[in-house]
Amino acid sequence: MTTTYALLLEYDGRGFVGWQMQPNGLSIQQVLEEAASRLAGGAPVAAAIAGRTDAGVHAEGQVAMITLDRDLPPQRLRDALNFYMKPHAVVVQDVRVAPEGWHPRFNALRRRYRYVILNRRARPALEAGHVWHMPHPLEAGAMAEGARFLLGRHDFTSFRAASCQAKSPLRTLDRLDVRRDGFHIIIETEARSFLHHQVRNMVGTLKLVGAGVWEPAQMAEALAARDRAAAGPTAPPDGLTFMSVDYEPAIF
Amino acid sequence: MTTTYALLLEYDGRGFVGWQMQPNGLSIQQVLEEAASRLAGGAPVAAAIAGRTDAGVHAEGQVAMITLDRDLPPQRLRDALNFYMKPHAVVVQDVRVAPEGWHPRFNALRRRYRYVILNRRARPALEAGHVWHMPHPLEAGAMAEGARFLLGRHDFTSFRAASCQAKSPLRTLDRLDVRRDGFHIIIETEARSFLHHQVRNMVGTLKLVGAGVWEPAQMAEALAARDRAAAGPTAPPDGLTFMSVDYEPAIF
Repeated sequence: MTTTYALLLEYDGRGFVGWQMQPNGLSIQQVLEEAASRLAGGAPVAAAIAGRTDAGVHAEGQVAMITLDRDLPPQRLRDALNFYMKPHAVVVQDVRVAPEGWHPRFNALRRRYRYVILNRRARPALEAGHVWHMPHPLEAGAMAEGARFLLGRHDFTSFRAASCQAKSPLRTLDRLDVRRDGFHIIIETEARSFLHHQVRNMVGTLKLVGAGVWEPAQMAEALAARDRAAAGPTAPPDGLTFMSVDYEPAIF
Repeated sequence: MTTTYALLLEYDGRGFVGWQMQPNGLSIQQVLEEAASRLAGGAPVAAAIAGRTDAGVHAEGQVAMITLDRDLPPQRLRDALNFYMKPHAVVVQDVRVAPEGWHPRFNALRRRYRYVILNRRARPALEAGHVWHMPHPLEAGAMAEGARFLLGRHDFTSFRAASCQAKSPLRTLDRLDVRRDGFHIIIETEARSFLHHQVRNMVGTLKLVGAGVWEPAQMAEALAARDRAAAGPTAPPDGLTFMSVDYEPAIF
């Protein structure tokens, strides 16, 4: 008899090669799977995830799935995984027994990311590794205006990493809000799913608008070009956080 | 000719022995003074501060003062200090030429601190070093009620470190608010000045109220006892941030 669990994860992406197992360093997947294996008498445990994140990208509300050969109360599983994942900056906030046939990636209805730019001369001291530091003034209003051109269903080839393995470049972007809060520029985005590097490429291109290098309407031209070279550079991972993912019925 | 500058500092207290120079490790004062010395041709530069902070305590809006034998434009001084303080988690956010006779400590009219408790089972991943992790549920409403007994002018001997060097234990506490925001309990406090460890000792005692070990009114008894042993333990430095300090006229 096996039990499948849904896990609500928080992690600090610094010092990890990303979610996925890599030969060149420690991944979040490895930390979680090794902890889960301790609970499976040393047998290997495979974890699936709602949305893979790259090296340096953080998560406040990532969702993962593991299957164990035993029936642990969810809160005991949470505490045990957190114990074995110490001292790594990965924790399980909550655990639920997963519904029959549920998968964190294939059943995800909506994913949310947040990207934070620190827009001031001084580099970050308190937020190092958690923001993209832009010392020159950015115009958040123009960025918000440019962002609106990306909303809706489009071919996002211009904002897709060369390494992206998705079959189709078509995605429906439901939200891409840009607002200033003091020295911070906060970008919040929502979609059923995103292409690889899509958020970081959208942010890197909006930065051109914020800096006055591009007019807001050039976001539409970049999108229409369906050519990665027509959009701006990829923003660094530091400012990006996977915020949450929705399921129907809700898991957490 | 010398020029005195007011500096608005941000720092991450982790890895420092605190503001003040110590033989056993690196202090924020040392990082700042060594950077300032580079701008003084190697001559020693002494920095004064609005409020000394202990090892592990952070600052968002600390104010310091340095005097240099030269007249640098404030924004150039900021950029130069930030350059020389790399890669330490200390930055100068802003610089002003100080008013005649001004001192960051003696002219401070009001200081603000924030203390953040992460109140959930899972240890912090994203906020490690920046919160006090309390896995057992705390009642923020009871803590807020208990906090009100400390407002006003009192002898704060019960909340004062043995090492405190202030002449008088009398202080006027103008604000001590406790509120819950999700898994966070946020404590904000304001006074003209605080005794050594006063904020951390107030928080450590309020935690007893939040946990139901103490009734809110026992805060008044602890205060009236004028005995450090009558109050609760010192909360860890991680959750504490020096937020801001007021001057008249305003400096920043």
